[in-house]
Amino acid sequence: MPALTLLAGSSNGPLAAAIAEAVGTPLGACLTQQFPDGERHVELLESVRDHDVFMIQPTSPPVAEHLLELLFLADACRRAGAGRLTAVIPYYGYARQDRRAAGRESIGARVIADVIAACAIGRVVVTDLHTPASEAFFSVPVEHVSAVKLLARALGNVPDDAVVVAPDFGAVRLAEQYSHLLDRPMASVHKMRLGPESVEVRQLVGDVRGRTPIIVDDMVSTGHTVAASVRALLGAGCAPDITVVVSHGLFVGEIERVLGGLPISRIVTTDTVAQRSDLLLPITVASVAPLLAEVIKHLHRSESLSDVLAHR
Amino acid sequence: MPALTLLAGSSNGPLAAAIAEAVGTPLGACLTQQFPDGERHVELLESVRDHDVFMIQPTSPPVAEHLLELLFLADACRRAGAGRLTAVIPYYGYARQDRRAAGRESIGARVIADVIAACAIGRVVVTDLHTPASEAFFSVPVEHVSAVKLLARALGNVPDDAVVVAPDFGAVRLAEQYSHLLDRPMASVHKMRLGPESVEVRQLVGDVRGRTPIIVDDMVSTGHTVAASVRALLGAGCAPDITVVVSHGLFVGEIERVLGGLPISRIVTTDTVAQRSDLLLPITVASVAPLLAEVIKHLHRSESLSDVLAHR
Amino acid sequence: MPALTLLAGSSNGPLAAAIAEAVGTPLGACLTQQFPDGERHVELLESVRDHDVFMIQPTSPPVAEHLLELLFLADACRRAGAGRLTAVIPYYGYARQDRRAAGRESIGARVIADVIAACAIGRVVVTDLHTPASEAFFSVPVEHVSAVKLLARALGNVPDDAVVVAPDFGAVRLAEQYSHLLDRPMASVHKMRLGPESVEVRQLVGDVRGRTPIIVDDMVSTGHTVAASVRALLGAGCAPDITVVVSHGLFVGEIERVLGGLPISRIVTTDTVAQRSDLLLPITVASVAPLLAEVIKHLHRSESLSDVLAHR
Amino acid sequence: MPALTLLAGSSNGPLAAAIAEAVGTPLGACLTQQFPDGERHVELLESVRDHDVFMIQPTSPPVAEHLLELLFLADACRRAGAGRLTAVIPYYGYARQDRRAAGRESIGARVIADVIAACAIGRVVVTDLHTPASEAFFSVPVEHVSAVKLLARALGNVPDDAVVVAPDFGAVRLAEQYSHLLDRPMASVHKMRLGPESVEVRQLVGDVRGRTPIIVDDMVSTGHTVAASVRALLGAGCAPDITVVVSHGLFVGEIERVLGGLPISRIVTTDTVAQRSDLLLPITVASVAPLLAEVIKHLHRSESLSDVLAHR
Amino acid sequence: MPALTLLAGSSNGPLAAAIAEAVGTPLGACLTQQFPDGERHVELLESVRDHDVFMIQPTSPPVAEHLLELLFLADACRRAGAGRLTAVIPYYGYARQDRRAAGRESIGARVIADVIAACAIGRVVVTDLHTPASEAFFSVPVEHVSAVKLLARALGNVPDDAVVVAPDFGAVRLAEQYSHLLDRPMASVHKMRLGPESVEVRQLVGDVRGRTPIIVDDMVSTGHTVAASVRALLGAGCAPDITVVVSHGLFVGEIERVLGGLPISRIVTTDTVAQRSDLLLPITVASVAPLLAEVIKHLHRSESLSDVLAHR
Amino acid sequence: MPALTLLAGSSNGPLAAAIAEAVGTPLGACLTQQFPDGERHVELLESVRDHDVFMIQPTSPPVAEHLLELLFLADACRRAGAGRLTAVIPYYGYARQDRRAAGRESIGARVIADVIAACAIGRVVVTDLHTPASEAFFSVPVEHVSAVKLLARALGNVPDDAVVVAPDFGAVRLAEQYSHLLDRPMASVHKMRLGPESVEVRQLVGDVRGRTPIIVDDMVSTGHTVAASVRALLGAGCAPDITVVVSHGLFVGEIERVLGGLPISRIVTTDTVAQRSDLLLPITVASVAPLLAEVIKHLHRSESLSDVLAHR
Repeated sequence: MPALTLLAGSSNGPLAAAIAEAVGTPLGACLTQQFPDGERHVELLESVRDHDVFMIQPTSPPVAEHLLELLFLADACRRAGAGRLTAVIPYYGYARQDRRAAGRESIGARVIADVIAACAIGRVVVTDLHTPASEAFFSVPVEHVSAVKLLARALGNVPDDAVVVAPDFGAVRLAEQYSHLLDRPMASVHKMRLGPESVEVRQLVGDVRGRTPIIVDDMVSTGHTVAASVRALLGAGCAPDITVVVSHGLFVGEIERVLGGLPISRIVTTDTVAQRSDLLLPITVASVAPLLAEVIKHLHRSESLSDVLAHR
Repeated sequence: MPALTLLAGSSNGPLAAAIAEAVGTPLGACLTQQFPDGERHVELLESVRDHDVFMIQPTSPPVAEHLLELLFLADACRRAGAGRLTAVIPYYGYARQDRRAAGRESIGARVIADVIAACAIGRVVVTDLHTPASEAFFSVPVEHVSAVKLLARALGNVPDDAVVVAPDFGAVRLAEQYSHLLDRPMASVHKMRLGPESVEVRQLVGDVRGRTPIIVDDMVSTGHTVAASVRALLGAGCAPDITVVVSHGLFVGEIERVLGGLPISRIVTTDTVAQRSDLLLPITVASVAPLLAEVIKHLHRSESLSDVLAHR
Repeated sequence: MPALTLLAGSSNGPLAAAIAEAVGTPLGACLTQQFPDGERHVELLESVRDHDVFMIQPTSPPVAEHLLELLFLADACRRAGAGRLTAVIPYYGYARQDRRAAGRESIGARVIADVIAACAIGRVVVTDLHTPASEAFFSVPVEHVSAVKLLARALGNVPDDAVVVAPDFGAVRLAEQYSHLLDRPMASVHKMRLGPESVEVRQLVGDVRGRTPIIVDDMVSTGHTVAASVRALLGAGCAPDITVVVSHGLFVGEIERVLGGLPISRIVTTDTVAQRSDLLLPITVASVAPLLAEVIKHLHRSESLSDVLAHR
Repeated sequence: MPALTLLAGSSNGPLAAAIAEAVGTPLGACLTQQFPDGERHVELLESVRDHDVFMIQPTSPPVAEHLLELLFLADACRRAGAGRLTAVIPYYGYARQDRRAAGRESIGARVIADVIAACAIGRVVVTDLHTPASEAFFSVPVEHVSAVKLLARALGNVPDDAVVVAPDFGAVRLAEQYSHLLDRPMASVHKMRLGPESVEVRQLVGDVRGRTPIIVDDMVSTGHTVAASVRALLGAGCAPDITVVVSHGLFVGEIERVLGGLPISRIVTTDTVAQRSDLLLPITVASVAPLLAEVIKHLHRSESLSDVLAHR
Repeated sequence: MPALTLLAGSSNGPLAAAIAEAVGTPLGACLTQQFPDGERHVELLESVRDHDVFMIQPTSPPVAEHLLELLFLADACRRAGAGRLTAVIPYYGYARQDRRAAGRESIGARVIADVIAACAIGRVVVTDLHTPASEAFFSVPVEHVSAVKLLARALGNVPDDAVVVAPDFGAVRLAEQYSHLLDRPMASVHKMRLGPESVEVRQLVGDVRGRTPIIVDDMVSTGHTVAASVRALLGAGCAPDITVVVSHGLFVGEIERVLGGLPISRIVTTDTVAQRSDLLLPITVASVAPLLAEVIKHLHRSESLSDVLAHR
Repeated sequence: MPALTLLAGSSNGPLAAAIAEAVGTPLGACLTQQFPDGERHVELLESVRDHDVFMIQPTSPPVAEHLLELLFLADACRRAGAGRLTAVIPYYGYARQDRRAAGRESIGARVIADVIAACAIGRVVVTDLHTPASEAFFSVPVEHVSAVKLLARALGNVPDDAVVVAPDFGAVRLAEQYSHLLDRPMASVHKMRLGPESVEVRQLVGDVRGRTPIIVDDMVSTGHTVAASVRALLGAGCAPDITVVVSHGLFVGEIERVLGGLPISRIVTTDTVAQRSDLLLPITVASVAPLLAEVIKHLHRSESLSDVLAHR
């Protein structure tokens, strides 16, 4: 069995440290400098020759910087004679750019997959991709780890009158999963535009009157989608006690203002993105570190992931 | 401008002929033989040197046979010095295998994309892919042509009390499109499993009581999903006058028996798959040939597709 | 040494079972379903992570179906983290399409090699390729296993007056091998066309008068080539007691009728193609399973194949 | 001749505008949005189908952002059916990471070349690469345009007692060029480390006493190398009237402080990097826009570049 | 239509000149120097930007030198912005290494194909490959031009009692072609080894007694195979007036001594390999230049090759 | 740990033998024949299945022959099922063709890198590349081993008045290294051309009067550059006792005449190129075999090279 090396880029130090601790292997020594002109320089300070290397680097914002750092790590490993390279990317930036919606666009998620492949990364571990089909943007194996059970457990007891709500059609599949795990019915919110000039409205599909909503999504960014859903739910007479569950909590822009005055009692998320501690929001974080550590240990030992993924 | 050559594989002769007529260019002479052991032999009977070649071949069942014939056509063209090769695949077989659902599966839609790419096909035209994100399984450009407007027009006048119904979560996005185009509300049906041992049931999300359902999906195969949705809709009190609209009508297995006794008044579909004329079902076919012919003409003349795709 | 996994596609169950028994390893659990529309779904039911996987799948008719199933097996293995993938393809479909004979044809054998390579198969084992040079259609290593010695042994005692006959120029090299192994002279039959409009005739090169012919070829399909050779041999006064030896016995079409009335006393072949038991022909089958099992065992143990291939 | 489209990323708007004006073709309409989480979205607002597209985007700081934007532009073009894609990258970020100096490093300039190649860019135009050999990091054609003659002309009359000075060994080749063009002798400064623990000193090779130095380099970033050379030159008795000539003027960090008190009378550079107008340094900018416009016009018209490159 | 450029490497100047004359286009100016250490340097002296370039370079001995020169030509063209690159390789060195015969060998003909492909050569023109199937070692299109009709015509009137003879099994297919074109019967010579320790003997298959042999092969190198066949034919009582016809006349080693005392009245070959004028052998050379010139003109004009290849 | 196999091509037998002895593993049995037409045939006489194979083959003149032999060795290994292939190329032919200097040239060093990569060589070991950046012409890992320390030690005691001299700008970096290791100042010689028609002259930069020059370069070929530098140094009044130190000693052409009458007391080099014993020049050879043997042993054992490369 080749030696195991864990390396961390700079995008989520606490998560990398927690994974390393759970794996029981210290993070490999590796120096990333940034020069005054912003260029980065990556140097590995210990041998990785023929090692089984896992590079932990969510490509959270600033995505381009974190991505390039990951590519440089991979290049340094490859040129230093590393064995298999696995990129552990718990949050996959640009995952939402998964198809051409409006015409002459780029498909960012495929571009990212291509440049990762161009740097000899032989395996990728991701968590709750925005679109499951984008696993197949890669020709290398992708281990798609779900944090849904973890988050469902973190919710604790759920009221009998709860209803799982998908805030847009992209979250409907996820809502099906939570609806099944929590044994509660589901509803969904859909954006409709009334004529080419008129404003966008939300159509609510399903029965939420008097029920306690649990809004589920793969990620929250500025909070606008959640806020619009909350308003649609309130308009339909839901109970004013709303829970939000998302795998990836970006919390960017003016999210405190956006979600501020709404009856959201809890936002449950994970640490795939490094979390700020200063946000004035009722955030609960369930760490994916133990789960990802199990995945890494099993992959390193050439063991099946079925049990890990089924029970977590 | 290089010369234009249209070639047709054997999977949908009528469609290819209709496209050729609409383009105004006869199909290129090309001989496909099948030997007694089932092997096919492809030979082009006219020069394609430096031509702009479009190969029309939906990969409908038997998918593997039609796919291999397409690859052989492409190889024959390439070795005969053809210019750009475009595969026009109105129905893309294996499109539903777009991710790993249960564990150690293959992702058929990516395998197909890979073997197509391995045969120097430089561009692909498809119609209503099961999963839009699978466009990005290709690194070559994919023109994703939608038949939704065509089908919406083919529906004619829609009752005021109609409701657009997605028969499973994969059709929710499509239902949003039809809901918008037809200006009618939507509902959706979701499969739920009650405990690991118990049977699967259908949860209906949205209000259908007394309404006239229009079930929309990208394809119908054996009809079982449609039949289950119809039963769920009837159970919820919908009007017993149901329309089904699908881009791709495979109609395999015992579909006449499956859909036979149900109050389905109309099934509207296209000719991306060669249609049998003997089915005892109320099928209306709207041809995609004019649309695909426009796409081919514009591509050949290096013209923008925006207008074609916006107005059709 | 990584764990060994043998997988079998559906094209030749008895051969796969015999190989597995000879290797001493049960076939890996793997589920191939076929849906009503003919699409196949492959799922591995046990872990192959970092295993040394051998997939046994002759691409006998229906070639396209068996080929695609092989590609799906490979894709499932790759995405499940398998180690080295070896495709054991005892009968290689489309092997005869090895060059462009008439002009704008495809080269089927290269297309197949390309799509196999596109699916990350790292090594291929074949038996008696129609054209030995087509080994080099692959960039991955090809172990080309010959069944000629096995078949020569299966012939038992050969009459002193026997003559080895190549039924067309493509079999001349093979006839040289049998001529040497059996220590008997050789002859060959050649197709000639008398003018562009006239019929094809057979020219017999070599002396067969009064001799007992052993017609050798890599494969028999419909039997027409064999039948024409038999007629040419009889016309030249050979003994009316003819043996046919072929590595691959496809026996398709109306072969019973084609070979029926001819003085063929024996057809010796192998089980690279699954044999039907109901044919009214004097067929003797020598199994390649022990030979292929030795090859697999040696490859898995990183051992030289020289001895295996020299003595079998 | 296919239509010409010029596209500009956001890294150097004034240069792109000047090139477009000199070419006589307006910049193609193209929308780059940046979302609150920092992700960019690229959309082309006009057709590029089969066009000859030149994308103008120096990868100046922030390099990763500008690089990814370039890749997205290329992907959008490719998927929109563009013809040949040429990336015009007057300043090539990470050009200095051209080899492994210290051991387990990445080679940034090759990583960038690889990701550019992974996005189907078929030709690259660069200006004064840090290391000329890095042209060959690309397999696609690279037009390496030199701004040296342009800068030499911008210097105007050079004193008879001038001496061309390379501030480190990497600039010696450039100094040879300027020495030849200006017909003045050359000198060079070399970093030496006196023992493993001691400080770095500068060794001056060549005669500068009483002469007027012209320090030449491919780029200036923080100014520290220039400042150290100036001190070494002054220590060797040069005239206190120093000119600095660099192709790429990054001017980052505290460059005003670093170069502030030194007797530098002129800094001559180009606009390959967008120049700030607020720097308190005696900067003269010679635009490369006319030169790059000529290059683009010749490339588009399939004309030889020899004359353009020889006379500019 | 892009401009046409013909370039010649140094392996067969007279052929290149004759082709250029027949095409009606002078050879492009191109300088190949060889330094004292044997390294070559290739420089194109005129623009090839977007030209349709044909590089004429048979890879005759010294094969490695001529091959590398071809690769350098191709690289110079590619980096200079050439359009399509076609390598015209009338004699393809290492063509006989087309499979692994003895075990752990390389397959030279595939290695050559791979390195040609690695240098962006997009099309190859060859003449009478040793093994037709090796066309498919390339993924790029190969135009396989036959000199057989040309040579058959060069034979003039053939005696009524002539017999076409294949000197080994590899030439049997060629003998079939000549037998058909000349309307004469055929025979073949086969090497046999009598036991592992004993010498190799020649078995003659077919009737040659009193007949005038025409030995046909794709190439002659040292003449040993021809000489052995002549002896076998004489031993079987053929007429002592033998003609030899080969596409490629290498005439290396002591061929004058090897063939010297034998009753060979004529050796008919082509100029695919530059011919020495000093050989004391009855050599007649039929030039392939007009044929290859037609091929080049048709390829350049995007015209079908069918007529050219059928009538020449 | 996989088995280790060392293979040697024919370019430098003594070096390969010395490396094998230092590694403690005999060279693998391998037969390279050369046929009368100059084609080579490579056959491995022992199994390399899954072995860790190192092929020792400097690509010294004749470069093309030695390169092709290396590619054939690699192909034979790959097809025979070898594990990782490492090419040990102590002298890398065509290393000086590392960029386009004059326009439409090829970049030989990249072409060589490409063809090496095309033959599945997974790692390369080189010694003192002419341009360090050309390491990155490869995408596979390159271990760049320096012989500078070895050569500096071989110089023994160096006079106090010594001066390290770079004979052209390409050697300046090397001169910096020797200047530091030997603790002596440096100077450099630069070629200047006085006007387009006039002759080339040498400009000497730095102070050499009365000093003892040590001319350092990566290689010496015909000796002309060294001779010109010597003349420039003598003209500047250096001591007439000159040492030349080069990593690679090609010594081709009339080098004895070129360097003959000059006051060169010692030429120190290595055995990366097989040395002739008959040269009338004061050559001292320091073998790189122990160093390369250590590198091979460490690579085979998956050990870090830092210590090896730091102390040698």
